[in-house]
Amino acid sequence: MIRFVNGLESVRLYARVKDLPIVDFHCHLSPREIREDAPFTSLGQLWLGGDHYKWRLMRQYGIEEKYITGDAPWREKLRAFLQALEGAAGNPLYHWCTLELERYFGVELPLTAANADAICDAADAVIRKQQLSPRKLIERSGVEFIATTDDPADPLDEHLAIAADPTFSVRVTPSFRTDRLLTLTAADYAQYLARLGSAAGVEIRDLATFRAAVEKRLDDFCAAGCRMTDVGVALFPDRIGTDEQADEALKLALRGELVSHEAQMAFLGNCFVFLAQAYRKRNLVMQWHLGALRNVSNTLFRACGLDAGGDVAGDGVPVSQVAAVLNAIDSTGGLPKTILYALRQDMAQPLGILAGAFRNVTLGAAWWFCDTRYGITEQLKTAAETGCLAVFPGMLTDSRSFLSYARHDYYRRLVSDLLGGWVAAGEYDANAAKRLAAKLCYGNAKQMAEGETEA
Amino acid sequence: MIRFVNGLESVRLYARVKDLPIVDFHCHLSPREIREDAPFTSLGQLWLGGDHYKWRLMRQYGIEEKYITGDAPWREKLRAFLQALEGAAGNPLYHWCTLELERYFGVELPLTAANADAICDAADAVIRKQQLSPRKLIERSGVEFIATTDDPADPLDEHLAIAADPTFSVRVTPSFRTDRLLTLTAADYAQYLARLGSAAGVEIRDLATFRAAVEKRLDDFCAAGCRMTDVGVALFPDRIGTDEQADEALKLALRGELVSHEAQMAFLGNCFVFLAQAYRKRNLVMQWHLGALRNVSNTLFRACGLDAGGDVAGDGVPVSQVAAVLNAIDSTGGLPKTILYALRQDMAQPLGILAGAFRNVTLGAAWWFCDTRYGITEQLKTAAETGCLAVFPGMLTDSRSFLSYARHDYYRRLVSDLLGGWVAAGEYDANAAKRLAAKLCYGNAKQMAEGETEA
Amino acid sequence: MIRFVNGLESVRLYARVKDLPIVDFHCHLSPREIREDAPFTSLGQLWLGGDHYKWRLMRQYGIEEKYITGDAPWREKLRAFLQALEGAAGNPLYHWCTLELERYFGVELPLTAANADAICDAADAVIRKQQLSPRKLIERSGVEFIATTDDPADPLDEHLAIAADPTFSVRVTPSFRTDRLLTLTAADYAQYLARLGSAAGVEIRDLATFRAAVEKRLDDFCAAGCRMTDVGVALFPDRIGTDEQADEALKLALRGELVSHEAQMAFLGNCFVFLAQAYRKRNLVMQWHLGALRNVSNTLFRACGLDAGGDVAGDGVPVSQVAAVLNAIDSTGGLPKTILYALRQDMAQPLGILAGAFRNVTLGAAWWFCDTRYGITEQLKTAAETGCLAVFPGMLTDSRSFLSYARHDYYRRLVSDLLGGWVAAGEYDANAAKRLAAKLCYGNAKQMAEGETEA
Repeated sequence: MIRFVNGLESVRLYARVKDLPIVDFHCHLSPREIREDAPFTSLGQLWLGGDHYKWRLMRQYGIEEKYITGDAPWREKLRAFLQALEGAAGNPLYHWCTLELERYFGVELPLTAANADAICDAADAVIRKQQLSPRKLIERSGVEFIATTDDPADPLDEHLAIAADPTFSVRVTPSFRTDRLLTLTAADYAQYLARLGSAAGVEIRDLATFRAAVEKRLDDFCAAGCRMTDVGVALFPDRIGTDEQADEALKLALRGELVSHEAQMAFLGNCFVFLAQAYRKRNLVMQWHLGALRNVSNTLFRACGLDAGGDVAGDGVPVSQVAAVLNAIDSTGGLPKTILYALRQDMAQPLGILAGAFRNVTLGAAWWFCDTRYGITEQLKTAAETGCLAVFPGMLTDSRSFLSYARHDYYRRLVSDLLGGWVAAGEYDANAAKRLAAKLCYGNAKQMAEGETEA
Repeated sequence: MIRFVNGLESVRLYARVKDLPIVDFHCHLSPREIREDAPFTSLGQLWLGGDHYKWRLMRQYGIEEKYITGDAPWREKLRAFLQALEGAAGNPLYHWCTLELERYFGVELPLTAANADAICDAADAVIRKQQLSPRKLIERSGVEFIATTDDPADPLDEHLAIAADPTFSVRVTPSFRTDRLLTLTAADYAQYLARLGSAAGVEIRDLATFRAAVEKRLDDFCAAGCRMTDVGVALFPDRIGTDEQADEALKLALRGELVSHEAQMAFLGNCFVFLAQAYRKRNLVMQWHLGALRNVSNTLFRACGLDAGGDVAGDGVPVSQVAAVLNAIDSTGGLPKTILYALRQDMAQPLGILAGAFRNVTLGAAWWFCDTRYGITEQLKTAAETGCLAVFPGMLTDSRSFLSYARHDYYRRLVSDLLGGWVAAGEYDANAAKRLAAKLCYGNAKQMAEGETEA
Repeated sequence: MIRFVNGLESVRLYARVKDLPIVDFHCHLSPREIREDAPFTSLGQLWLGGDHYKWRLMRQYGIEEKYITGDAPWREKLRAFLQALEGAAGNPLYHWCTLELERYFGVELPLTAANADAICDAADAVIRKQQLSPRKLIERSGVEFIATTDDPADPLDEHLAIAADPTFSVRVTPSFRTDRLLTLTAADYAQYLARLGSAAGVEIRDLATFRAAVEKRLDDFCAAGCRMTDVGVALFPDRIGTDEQADEALKLALRGELVSHEAQMAFLGNCFVFLAQAYRKRNLVMQWHLGALRNVSNTLFRACGLDAGGDVAGDGVPVSQVAAVLNAIDSTGGLPKTILYALRQDMAQPLGILAGAFRNVTLGAAWWFCDTRYGITEQLKTAAETGCLAVFPGMLTDSRSFLSYARHDYYRRLVSDLLGGWVAAGEYDANAAKRLAAKLCYGNAKQMAEGETEA
């Protein structure tokens, strides 16, 4: 039996989807690293260089920070990690590491502290021998499309350079991530807008010029192949401010003056509607990542900074607020293709239900802390029970690591397991399942990558 | 193996319950249609004439409104529906349609777009040949009791006419649904009360006459066989207003003046307690449907009106509020038999726990968006783990369609599957399971229909 | 197959853990009863004398209070209980009673009303013949450590007497439960502080003397073997009051004056931070029991008082508040070993995620209403998917009954079933599973009992 794939019908489905190309429509890979394509040096670097999932696990296990984000050698860090991993039964890291070792390094040793050196030696030998590098991992994984996560003010030269390189045919496209754009209470917001204006060739003085700059950057992003947008701000608008209110709030921020919570919310709501219209016009996909609470530990933040393991699932966004903003956008002439992600499993059902009340809205893949063995299956079941599974957008890595394409394989196994189980029980048609599995693993994501609008 | 029924013990239980009569103690069937008993014309009409579950699915799949609620011929609508349904693995519509086709039309073709015409032809032939009509479907389904959903101001002549018809022996009874009665902020509330007063032969001028009218209508409903009441208002009382406060709020509404949120809540809380006492006096069952958020899409509401697919599960009602209102009622001398329904799966556990703190309160069947394969099983498990499964009130269709009795069959399969699984694993006694399954599928609902109070 | 243990790998794991000693690090047993060690008289007394779980079930089934907490003879109460239990498929009481009867009385009769007398006769015969008493049940269960639940003002003479008794070698230790200490709005709070001060030999006049008294009592508790602390207050601090604010609030309470909600919260937050530091200094474990709503039914409270079945899972504590208090404590130099318990299953995932953002914090065992067959497994899965299962603290009875050690067996079966299933599916290493199962069933709890800090 294939891991996570139980029963003959599931195995059959998996055989059909496992080698489909990968469309990774949301990740945090560095376009610079893809362009540079520097070979990796060790499994320790690859696994522990920037992965806050692993750091959290090690901290909870009780490992000293020296062996996590400190200056211990990679090999020692890896030994420490395997100590924690050995007891992390059921954690997605255990599954991902298992799949990554099998797939990229041919290593099938149990993940125990005692095996740390043997695992390391074997993997490092492959890395050296094959001179593994970002592009090699991307190509070997069958990736055909990558959407990185980029700021509206970012230059897009890395993406353009990759596109211009005839030796590498994978589409590496920028995504329009508006978190900084929307956080007008940030201390450096005025400087940020100056940088954005300069990238757009527009001097930002008010809402009109702000919008002009955003539109210009969106066009630039589209010219660089952009298909996806996303936002993951901590606040979700509880009102839709008028243009006057948004203009006023923005001017306060530009002058470095205090912006009240009410003014901030008015601006945010106004921007959500404006951005959605701008996306719809360009046939871009709008992704909402809802409910993250960032940097809850001051100690950790001071020691390790952002994205170090201190983010959690917060109290969640009220469904009624999400409904109101979707409605406000919808009332302007329809929604762009919209994907809702929630960080708490208990939000999946109400968001799945909500999606069904609007055209072009669907639940997205199990996100971050939900991206687990049971979480993925629960998400698929919820999408199926609250809507039409055939429009589920499919999997993404959401990762900073080039080994994470194993997560697509993981997802494909779980999709096959679920659908195959239904087929075996006579609850779903075997042929329909083949078509559906292919959509969920590749077809729907490919359609988004290519900008097709048909269902 | 029978669909959804796995293992020998489950199959045995299912054999005992599948043909038990049906007591459908909450539905939205039209008593007029039952009285008229006009034969149906086509599967398209039967399936797509008024079913917002199906409309939602079609919209999410991307089908044009013309083929949903528009003027396309039934056959074309049905083809479009089957396109969407083909990919709706795991959705209850897929399961219900499968079971309905098998049970009422003998059709076992896979639900694919390619089979749309064949399915339609076969079903339509049965409809014509057997001249299928509401009463034929009701009788063929083994229904012995129906509780429709009715407004306190409704004339009950359809129910009385059905009861007086010697050719039809199924009890078709009205249920007392108080949503309009309690929404004193509705624009037409004064007219509504005039109509209610006229039905009751009471001029409504204040709280006392309001209550007199309600009591009179309750007596009329009881005379027409009423056993059930229910309420599904968007707001849930956060206080229990005094009679003076309620009187004042009502008078404001009667004069067409603005009623504050506070006054509205005071009135609502006062009415919840008053109504519960009136129900207890008459041994009626009180159903609370909690947490719906209605008509979230203005676009859809303008195009298609109420009950068109724009309702969702809202933010939920705080458990502490539900507890406070139950307590206020309980303190007046006890609760009527009370059933709690929630629209969000995450509310089932806290409500199940809450039910256990009061006498006569239980969790109800998985409601609406929770009424799914996994939702039903989860609801049963939650009822079992938080209380005594033996008092679970059982299944209802909550439907506008005469084919929906298949949902009782669906539920009976899932009940059998769950209990049979426990028996097979040695976790529950086989004989007790037989008795329990019969209670859950028929006995408990029959007891409610007959007004017995013993557990 | 062993009940709840499916598959060969699970059976193998269970064989290794089922006879490990029990460390019961949180319960509500009476140290006086352990010291007195009076033999029991009947199963009725043992089961129904003080168990509000059973009372709730009986009330929901519709049994008269006379047979629940009234003056009916034990035998009649037991008959009534078995009537309710017969239909309580899936309820943990059904499972616990099954396991208790098998384990302590060798009774394997189905739990039906018809068997009530036979079950009672058989169990009572064992009770009489073996003169079953608290200590006999404790020793027969293989218990080596018990942490009772005690108030800071409690004399610890029972614990000291048990420790001094050479005929009984089980460690029976007090736990520091601060609910009364923190509820400064209680009518008798000033008297309570007088009693606390007297126990500590400190006159409590202000925050400084309050703290001195607490520290003194903590030292006394430690001298009596205390390893655990806990708190389950209804309110959770939404702010951290300064020492000045806390001092002021406390003085108001001492003078019997009204304390505002704000002042109460400030005091509470201040105390949470102070207590955590005092625990860390002494290497004590800090347990937070979150989200109970007490005594929701006035009728029941008037009739039966506290702890009679009227407590429920409330609206839950916002994750953001829990995060803020953890952060405030962490910022003082780190957290003591901290265990988070939630009463609602939907809180487990966000709390599990939150735990991972801080060192020394973990999710605890499924608590109270979550302590069910599916609840335990869900809790383990959530702990596994959101963190490192190897640090999960393990099981506790949380019970007032000496038969409840069967719950440890129940848990061990479910742990074995879960891990064994993963091993069988090739998702976890068989040898690692053996080590992990032993940690989850004994090792981690033993480490807490012994005050070891290494993971």
